[in-house]
Amino acid sequence: MTLLQVLDLAAVFVFGLTGALAASRAQLDIVGFVFLACLTAVGGGTLRDVVLGRDTVFWVAEPLMIVSATAAAVLVFFTAHRVESRLRTLEWLDAVALAVAVPAGAGLALSMDAPWIIVAIMGVATGTFGGLMRDVVCNEVPLILKKGELYATAALAGVLLALGAAAVGVPSGGALVACGCATFALRAGSMLFGWNLPVYKSRPPRK
Amino acid sequence: MTLLQVLDLAAVFVFGLTGALAASRAQLDIVGFVFLACLTAVGGGTLRDVVLGRDTVFWVAEPLMIVSATAAAVLVFFTAHRVESRLRTLEWLDAVALAVAVPAGAGLALSMDAPWIIVAIMGVATGTFGGLMRDVVCNEVPLILKKGELYATAALAGVLLALGAAAVGVPSGGALVACGCATFALRAGSMLFGWNLPVYKSRPPRK
Amino acid sequence: MTLLQVLDLAAVFVFGLTGALAASRAQLDIVGFVFLACLTAVGGGTLRDVVLGRDTVFWVAEPLMIVSATAAAVLVFFTAHRVESRLRTLEWLDAVALAVAVPAGAGLALSMDAPWIIVAIMGVATGTFGGLMRDVVCNEVPLILKKGELYATAALAGVLLALGAAAVGVPSGGALVACGCATFALRAGSMLFGWNLPVYKSRPPRK
Repeated sequence: MTLLQVLDLAAVFVFGLTGALAASRAQLDIVGFVFLACLTAVGGGTLRDVVLGRDTVFWVAEPLMIVSATAAAVLVFFTAHRVESRLRTLEWLDAVALAVAVPAGAGLALSMDAPWIIVAIMGVATGTFGGLMRDVVCNEVPLILKKGELYATAALAGVLLALGAAAVGVPSGGALVACGCATFALRAGSMLFGWNLPVYKSRPPRK
Repeated sequence: MTLLQVLDLAAVFVFGLTGALAASRAQLDIVGFVFLACLTAVGGGTLRDVVLGRDTVFWVAEPLMIVSATAAAVLVFFTAHRVESRLRTLEWLDAVALAVAVPAGAGLALSMDAPWIIVAIMGVATGTFGGLMRDVVCNEVPLILKKGELYATAALAGVLLALGAAAVGVPSGGALVACGCATFALRAGSMLFGWNLPVYKSRPPRK
Repeated sequence: MTLLQVLDLAAVFVFGLTGALAASRAQLDIVGFVFLACLTAVGGGTLRDVVLGRDTVFWVAEPLMIVSATAAAVLVFFTAHRVESRLRTLEWLDAVALAVAVPAGAGLALSMDAPWIIVAIMGVATGTFGGLMRDVVCNEVPLILKKGELYATAALAGVLLALGAAAVGVPSGGALVACGCATFALRAGSMLFGWNLPVYKSRPPRK
């Protein structure tokens, strides 16, 4: 199993946990948990594979991915009542999943020798779209749209770090690990300490 | 016309009716009816075809599909006022469409010799994504997220029945018919008699 | 650069402006502006390319598209406070983007000798899906669902005009320009003068 497949598998499992927590908040049955877990888990990577024109989408080539998301759903189904705040847990797991899925997306694009701008987009899109679909389907404000928090910014910074590292000769594995660490550190710092980027001129909509 | 194409055509027509009913609730004009009917009608099958990497998406290969969804839109445009409860009608037609689209998705994956787990996902995804897109675009709570109802569960049970039947040698046509009947029976039983799967520990979100 | 590429580039820039205005209403940071601008800018064209099975999605083949959407985001980030009504500005820019993206979608399908019904769908889908994704992600009622306004209708009328013009021998470039002008004229007339298609029997939902 390659590093990219390990990253995909880890992202699938952790995003699966977040999807299942969302299902728990919606009080669905076990199949509903599995459905939302799979949607969240493979959403970003499926988009990446379709846009990059891979012959086979990653979870069709490796059904273990679906097993992993299903296991996450079952785990949450039997334990979600033990978590004090599901929303807070969901947000933290989402941060972990983001930090794994961003290098998974960027790494694949890098391995296909895509231009850096495509690598950046694939990293951000793979990291964010699974969670975005989860939030849209559950009719929650997407985490990526929460004002005053780093989210897309954390993902982009991670990818740019990996691109910089690769440009100065760091091996691909090291660059991807750095990418994940930077993404998580920024996202976690934002959640814990309120780190954010200044808004030029904030102005709420009138309606 | 093969059985799979007949299933696709029927699913397109009935999902088209549900999309048009949603357009009627949003009080759109005739083109809005056609738009929502087509989106709902081909959404699930398009996802299936793109993920499975078919050379041509089914409705691009067979424009009759679009004619069928358009006919459904026109039919509803001129008759929706005669329906007492559009929401209830929409839900029942959605159940019929689900019961036709699930075997359409599973059958295609079976015909491509996909592993059983991919067949299961393709059945559920083809059956559910058109309606999911309709509900998300119309900003309604997706039917698949209504608590205490069988929806994804009905679809999954249908596919598993088909897989079991195929495994013991039932011809593909019979297995798909059994799949559709089981899906509809479970969904209808859930709507009429409140059949559901027990939730492990129900707990509403705090906010 | 071909006419189709110019249309794609223009649509990307103007849709990017609308996505960035939506980000401004959500009070996001600069990366959030770029994210929503890119999503809106390339959403419709990506769907078109994936469904038509092009070898490479247009913005992967030509990263200038992403540069253009990013420039739109930066421009709006520093100027959105000068606009009196961002919502109104967003709607007008959306009308311009629609009028450019519809011929971009129809033109590509025409150049692939697709049947007219596929040309019509590709025109409408390319024109509408970027904005639809923007509105769904931002949890706004999609512009395409606003009752009493021409939107899908304006797009469809533009495509049908182009198809008619092409059928009587007008060169492709002229047919696409006519398509864009007609789409914009109908959409603008609807916004300014309330032009609309009569609804057969309007009836609000009961709930």
